Amino acid sequence: MADPSLNALVDALRRLPGVGVKSASRMAYHLLQHDREGAQLLAQALMQATARIRQCSLCHTFTEEEVCPTCRDPQRDASKLCVVETPADQAALERTAAYRGRYFVLMGKLSPLDGIGPQDIGLGKLFQRATDGLVQEVILATNFTAEGEATAHVIGEALKQRGLKVTRLARGVPAGSELEYVDLGTIAHALVDRR
Amino acid sequence: MADPSLNALVDALRRLPGVGVKSASRMAYHLLQHDREGAQLLAQALMQATARIRQCSLCHTFTEEEVCPTCRDPQRDASKLCVVETPADQAALERTAAYRGRYFVLMGKLSPLDGIGPQDIGLGKLFQRATDGLVQEVILATNFTAEGEATAHVIGEALKQRGLKVTRLARGVPAGSELEYVDLGTIAHALVDRR
Ligand SMILES: [Zn+2]
Ligand SMILES: [Zn+2]
Repeated sequence: MADPSLNALVDALRRLPGVGVKSASRMAYHLLQHDREGAQLLAQALMQATARIRQCSLCHTFTEEEVCPTCRDPQRDASKLCVVETPADQAALERTAAYRGRYFVLMGKLSPLDGIGPQDIGLGKLFQRATDGLVQEVILATNFTAEGEATAHVIGEALKQRGLKVTRLARGVPAGSELEYVDLGTIAHALVDRR
Repeated sequence: MADPSLNALVDALRRLPGVGVKSASRMAYHLLQHDREGAQLLAQALMQATARIRQCSLCHTFTEEEVCPTCRDPQRDASKLCVVETPADQAALERTAAYRGRYFVLMGKLSPLDGIGPQDIGLGKLFQRATDGLVQEVILATNFTAEGEATAHVIGEALKQRGLKVTRLARGVPAGSELEYVDLGTIAHALVDRR
């Protein structure tokens, strides 16, 4: 089975997160057997994305330009800056259409065990952006996980010291849920954060 | 979030088997954020594999040549032909070093519900190969699943009608297992196939 092109393809697929040697082989066989067009499309998309996509110099999200469309949009409220972990989280917030301010995308979260510290999530750049004189409120929208909460805490403390208003997304009962089926921790948080 | 290169990459990754929109996004972000070298390697591996890899004209496995190394190897016993579903199954048999005959790789299995019929797994080519005058025994090594068993049955009946000796891998108790922990169906099969 010493087929160098096939081995190279399986090895390359294994670099994708969550893909082990078994799924990499299955993917390689599938592409070669049933979807060579898909394989070529993927190759082109990878080349194009790595050549064109960089990070916005203002908010760190992925963009094909020096400054992303959201940061350039004059309609957006420059007095509010929402801090999220990933572009996917930013997209989730955008889908709500409930926020018209600006963003800073950490592209990760503090995770000392994985060696991810303040510089890896661009905190220097965030503090610079937050103190540009336009931002008046920073909304921490990191995930409600242990690492997301810790990240929000660190950022919040640092920004409060710089005299900024810092808020956090409310924890609470998901819209449409019946209390009977909501976990206790969520109800407890909803009580604490009650309006 | 209308970033055409990023959207194209996520769409292309979704063509991989078992990859939905969430994992495709996670993969795209990972490659762009942490492993651009891996993205470029994968693009090259895909281009090279689709350009170079075809199916062996004798056994249907993937190879970079007209006839694969296994089919070309004069040391291998041409009187035995082992039928497997996939190159991965062939590799598993090769690792045992217990078989020195030749192979035919179906590149699938009969699956009427998925519209996979005899022509899709190359049965015409298999029957031609099995009746080349050299092959004396065909060993059916399809998987011991419902579809693998059905495939073995169809192939076995057709080859017996052509006067060939047809055998099937033995079902039985895995080496190293204690009977107490082996499932009943396996023990029943081991009784039927006892030597
Ligand atoms: Zn931006
Ligand atoms: Zn071959």
